[in-house]
Amino acid sequence: MPGGITIIEDGTVTSPQGYVAGATFAGLKTYAEDKLDLAILYSRRTTTAAGVFTQNKLKSPSVILTEEHVADGKAHAVVVNSGIANACVGDPGYGDAKRMTGKTADILGIRPEDVLICSTGVVGVELPMSLIESGIDRIQLATDGGHRMARAILTTDPRPKEIGVSFPLNGKTITIGGIAKGAGMIHPDMATMLSFITTDAEISSDLLKEMLKDAADDSFNMMTIDGDTSTNDTVLLMANGAAGAGPIRPGTEGAELFSHALAEVCIDLAKRIAREGEGATKLIEVTVEGARTLRQARSAARIISGSSLVKTAVHGNDPNWGRITVALGRSEADVEESKLALHINGALIMENGLPAPFHRDSVIALMSQGQVDIRVNLNLGEHSATAWGCNLSEEYVTFNSAYTT
Amino acid sequence: MPGGITIIEDGTVTSPQGYVAGATFAGLKTYAEDKLDLAILYSRRTTTAAGVFTQNKLKSPSVILTEEHVADGKAHAVVVNSGIANACVGDPGYGDAKRMTGKTADILGIRPEDVLICSTGVVGVELPMSLIESGIDRIQLATDGGHRMARAILTTDPRPKEIGVSFPLNGKTITIGGIAKGAGMIHPDMATMLSFITTDAEISSDLLKEMLKDAADDSFNMMTIDGDTSTNDTVLLMANGAAGAGPIRPGTEGAELFSHALAEVCIDLAKRIAREGEGATKLIEVTVEGARTLRQARSAARIISGSSLVKTAVHGNDPNWGRITVALGRSEADVEESKLALHINGALIMENGLPAPFHRDSVIALMSQGQVDIRVNLNLGEHSATAWGCNLSEEYVTFNSAYTT
Repeated sequence: MPGGITIIEDGTVTSPQGYVAGATFAGLKTYAEDKLDLAILYSRRTTTAAGVFTQNKLKSPSVILTEEHVADGKAHAVVVNSGIANACVGDPGYGDAKRMTGKTADILGIRPEDVLICSTGVVGVELPMSLIESGIDRIQLATDGGHRMARAILTTDPRPKEIGVSFPLNGKTITIGGIAKGAGMIHPDMATMLSFITTDAEISSDLLKEMLKDAADDSFNMMTIDGDTSTNDTVLLMANGAAGAGPIRPGTEGAELFSHALAEVCIDLAKRIAREGEGATKLIEVTVEGARTLRQARSAARIISGSSLVKTAVHGNDPNWGRITVALGRSEADVEESKLALHINGALIMENGLPAPFHRDSVIALMSQGQVDIRVNLNLGEHSATAWGCNLSEEYVTFNSAYTT
Repeated sequence: MPGGITIIEDGTVTSPQGYVAGATFAGLKTYAEDKLDLAILYSRRTTTAAGVFTQNKLKSPSVILTEEHVADGKAHAVVVNSGIANACVGDPGYGDAKRMTGKTADILGIRPEDVLICSTGVVGVELPMSLIESGIDRIQLATDGGHRMARAILTTDPRPKEIGVSFPLNGKTITIGGIAKGAGMIHPDMATMLSFITTDAEISSDLLKEMLKDAADDSFNMMTIDGDTSTNDTVLLMANGAAGAGPIRPGTEGAELFSHALAEVCIDLAKRIAREGEGATKLIEVTVEGARTLRQARSAARIISGSSLVKTAVHGNDPNWGRITVALGRSEADVEESKLALHINGALIMENGLPAPFHRDSVIALMSQGQVDIRVNLNLGEHSATAWGCNLSEEYVTFNSAYTT
């Protein structure tokens, strides 16, 4: 990793200085083994903040309220519940979100407008507000509380997703911590991808917003599980300056380092989400090189990683280059057939648009590993992009069709 | 059906007057039970002709040559092979397509430029030209040969798809016949959708082109199996005027009748293709009403019918309205949550954006039938559209991943 960025052990959202978190069981997520379903993340001082949000036209009121609260670039705390998405519930949804942020502000002694809120879980069910309010009262905040929060935001993920990285700046140590829950939809309607990222760096909200958008475009936005998006997808980034390293300004080396470290965190979390998609047993990493534009590279990488035929071929360890090129052909990328090259897990499969004489059994053996890397070179330009997805398994279908029958 | 349009018994591409067809086994499609793999369709007089073609950037040279040959709006015959797609083979592909049309023209005594060609099957394999040329020599053309041609174009479809309709015009009978093969990809790389439609009406190539585009937009372009498109998708329409009913001109009642009848043929074939998608056991018909524009209605209907989560819910007979609304939310359609209404097989599931108190077991029973109708009313405008898809089953995954392992 560039510039002395290191991964820290047991890193989480409370690894950066000045953050505490806690979680409890409010009674919403009765189907899961791990009953934590309500969490608060709090910075001892106010933070600058930025968010990226679902583009779905049916948004949870929790998302709408958080977009309003983060519009001034400031935050102080986050409250999040799992089990119920607070989506498709009509008028009460927005009021319930307001009550949750208000109650959280009350017990923390901060402004309700500085509390952000996320919800994830079943659609079409109202939040049981008295359970939530008494849950909020019970939450104990602790400097290692990030781990409990990471569990509390899960719905169907097999395990929590947490990471922390740090790097030196101006004689101090800057830390970034992140947690996420995946787009697993083993249970019905739990499509939400949530991620919370904290740092003790000092960064203006404008720069934070720009950096988060760039990092999300290279990570969360390059990840597909099954093509469906959610009413609740949210990534939040807070910066409280508690490391005492002074402000990070645009165009400086510090800004570059921070961008790298933030991308590291986001890509790590995105890959974990892809690898643990519902019914998935393999991570697919698709890199498209030699594209005419970045947009074309991204489109091609995403279309290939999301193709049902590519996903089933990976599931069956099938070096089926025809499916990869056919998926490529419906992306936005310019393609000249005679220039195409393709590698699967390092083995040359196709060159100059024609199949190479690869050793089939070797490639099948390579593809039987937990990660399948597909590398396409369009040989038309200088741009590249990477996307992540997962194999499509019989279990995906069984899980997703076994709800009521 | 409007204006006396009737479905004719055993209708096929040789049902309209003046068409003959035939098929043989050339030795390309060795994996199928039914060995026919090479067919010719011939009109005794030259026809006006129009085509719609795959939008995939990697096109088979067979498609490229047919686009060139049909550009003048004229045709006389079609030659088609199954088993090998003539795609991703480099330079020889175009020359082989030329040889196939040239050979066909020779034995029929017509111009090579009036022969259209389609190929479907495995990608990345060159056509065995001597087998094909001796196959073309063997083909016997007959007035009931459409049925053999309908079998010869198949790759993995469980059965041929044929239809014929007729209607009276100027004291004569106009007939339209159509055959199709589906987008089934049980075998690798056989993504192609092909359809051939013939009529004995007399129609200018400009009007024919316009009518075919409109009919395809309401049928083949509203059908999804798994979101992947092919290098070879083609729909061809030929009109030879042999019914003797005189020219059908734009804006006349005859043109309106013909459009209706053509749409009937295309929608029937599209529904059969969707119903027989790989691993599919159910047809999903999604109608979106009350959209602000036709484009928005089409986008919404297509996104819902193609959603993996909707397809698995239908597979499991799960009236999971959350998945339908969430898919709707990522389409191009404007949506106001509080105006949404949703019916599944006639049962009211959601109204004014809120779940209706439907009887769950009754709806599950309704969904256990071979066709699941999803009707969404956006209540925002006057436009509507219908799309067709199929359930996503464990068998789809098994078929598509079981190639080499």
